[in-house]
Amino acid sequence: MFHQISEKYKAIQASICTSLEACDRTGIFSDDPWERSIGKGMTRVMQRGEKIAKAAVNYSSVQGLYNDELSKVGGSKGTFYQATGISSIVHPVNPYSPIIHFNIRYFQLSSGECWFGGGIDLTPHYVDEREAIWFHSRLKSICDAYHPSFYHDFKTEADNYFYSPHRDETRGVGGIFFDMLKPSNDLTFNDLLEFTLDLGKNYAPIYNSIITKNHTKPYGNRELMWQNIRRGRYVEFNLIHDRGTKFGLLSGGNCESILVSLPPMASWEYNFQVEKFSEEENTLNMLKKGIDWVNLPRYE
Amino acid sequence: MFHQISEKYKAIQASICTSLEACDRTGIFSDDPWERSIGKGMTRVMQRGEKIAKAAVNYSSVQGLYNDELSKVGGSKGTFYQATGISSIVHPVNPYSPIIHFNIRYFQLSSGECWFGGGIDLTPHYVDEREAIWFHSRLKSICDAYHPSFYHDFKTEADNYFYSPHRDETRGVGGIFFDMLKPSNDLTFNDLLEFTLDLGKNYAPIYNSIITKNHTKPYGNRELMWQNIRRGRYVEFNLIHDRGTKFGLLSGGNCESILVSLPPMASWEYNFQVEKFSEEENTLNMLKKGIDWVNLPRYE
Repeated sequence: MFHQISEKYKAIQASICTSLEACDRTGIFSDDPWERSIGKGMTRVMQRGEKIAKAAVNYSSVQGLYNDELSKVGGSKGTFYQATGISSIVHPVNPYSPIIHFNIRYFQLSSGECWFGGGIDLTPHYVDEREAIWFHSRLKSICDAYHPSFYHDFKTEADNYFYSPHRDETRGVGGIFFDMLKPSNDLTFNDLLEFTLDLGKNYAPIYNSIITKNHTKPYGNRELMWQNIRRGRYVEFNLIHDRGTKFGLLSGGNCESILVSLPPMASWEYNFQVEKFSEEENTLNMLKKGIDWVNLPRYE
Repeated sequence: MFHQISEKYKAIQASICTSLEACDRTGIFSDDPWERSIGKGMTRVMQRGEKIAKAAVNYSSVQGLYNDELSKVGGSKGTFYQATGISSIVHPVNPYSPIIHFNIRYFQLSSGECWFGGGIDLTPHYVDEREAIWFHSRLKSICDAYHPSFYHDFKTEADNYFYSPHRDETRGVGGIFFDMLKPSNDLTFNDLLEFTLDLGKNYAPIYNSIITKNHTKPYGNRELMWQNIRRGRYVEFNLIHDRGTKFGLLSGGNCESILVSLPPMASWEYNFQVEKFSEEENTLNMLKKGIDWVNLPRYE
C-alpha cells in the first residue's frame, strides 16, 4: 500500500515538472536522486528559466523512529514511521508573478495509524485581489468535490499556519492546508488519496494560468527591490516557523533538498517603510488572516 | 546596580558607533529609540556606507517573567528577570572583508542570581588564515588579562555555539562566546563587568584594522556571488539556531531590531559547488570546530 501511494506521488512529480517546463519554455529540471539512511528521494530543480527564477519539485520516501525532537512536530514517541510526499515551490522572475507552494504527503505509523497532509498556497509579491479570488475559487471547487467542509476548514488552517507572529502578517494570500487527515464515515482512505492526487494534478495548471497572465508585465528596480524584501519575509517564515522545514532538518533529511524552497535572492533593509497609498502598502493590508476571498465582490 | 551597568553599556554603544563611522568615512548611524511593555532600547543602524553595507549597534534594557518558552533558552520558570546588553553586527561591502558580530549582556533574576554573557566572532566570506590568527590572538590577550582559562574555554564555546549542524559547518572562524558567567573565588563581579566592557572597547578597533586592510581589494561578480551565498548561510544560522534571535522574538522584543542582523542581500543556489583548489574551497575547509588558531604557524 505504502509503495503504491509512493509510486502515484512520483508520477505526480513527473507531471508537474513536464507542465512547468512547458510553461517556462526554456528552463529544464535537473534530476538529483538521493539515498541516505533515512530513505530516498528525487530532487528536481529548475534555475534561471525564462519565467521561473527557481522551481523545485521534490519527491521523497523516508522512514525512521519518532524521537523527542520529531514528536514536537506531530505524532507520538517510540513509533516507527514511513512517510512519502511531494513538495514544490516556484519563485518567479517577474515580481508581479506570485510565489507558489504545494505539498502532499502520506504518513503511516507502526501502530497502524495513518494520515494525509498537504496544501497549496500563494504568496504574491504584489497582491492582485482578482487573482487571489480566482485562486481560492479554484481550490474551493477541488475541495467541494470531496467534502463540503474541506475548503472552509483547510482555508482556515492555511490562514493560521502560514502566519508569522513576529511580523503579524500572513505569508501571502493563503490557500488550503491540512494535516492528520484520516478516513472517516464520510470519506474512505481512497477518497483521501484521490483528493491529494487531484491537488497534485491541478497545482501546475493553476500556477501556469497565473504566471502566463503576469510574466510580461513591465517592472523596474522598485519592483525588484520589493520582490527581494518579500522574499526575505518568505525566508523568515520558512526558517523560523515552518514545521516541514524543521521536520526535514531534524529527521536528518537532505539539507539541500529541504532548503531548496529558499529564494534565489532576498534582501533585508532595516525598518523598510512602504509609501502611503502605494501598491506595496495595498499588499501589506491584504496580508491578514480571515479574508473570505471566495465571497469578495469580483469587480467584474 | 542594574541601572549603572546599563548606562555603562549605553556608553559602549556610543563609542562603537563613533569608531565605525570614523572608519567608514561616509556612513552615518541613525538613532531609533524604542519603548514597549518589555522595556526600552536604542537601535542604531548604518546602511549603504562606503566600506560598510549594513551595521547595527543595539542597546536594550528589558524585563519580564520567564515563561515556558523563554526557560528553554536559559534560566528557570516563574522568576522575574532584568537584562541589559549591546549587540552589534557589521556586514561589509567588500567580499574580502569579513562579517563581525559582538554582544555583551547582563542578566539579573529576582532570585538574586546574576550573570554576564557575550562574545565576539568573525565570519569571513573568504577565510584569510593570517587574519584569523591575528583576530584570535587579540581576543586571547584581552581574555588573558582576566583569567588564564578564559580564552580556551570561550573559544571552545564559540566553536560549539556558532555551528550549523544541518550544514556541518561553523558560521565562520569563531572567536569567543560565554554565557552564565558568574563571580567566583578568582573573579569578582566587578572583574566580570570590566571584562565585558573591555571587549566592548576593543571590538570596533579590531574590526577597523581588519576592514581597513581589505576594503580596497579588487573583486568581481564571482566574489559578490560567493559573498551572497555565505550571507545566506549566515541567515540560516541566525534564524534556525541562534538563541539570541529566538529569545528576542519569543520575549516580544522589537522584531526590526532583532532581525537587523540579517544581511542587506543573500542568495541561495541549489547544490552550489565550489571549484577544486579555489579560494572558496579553502574557505569551506576552514569552517571546522577545533582549529587552534593562536598556535598555527604564521608563515612570517
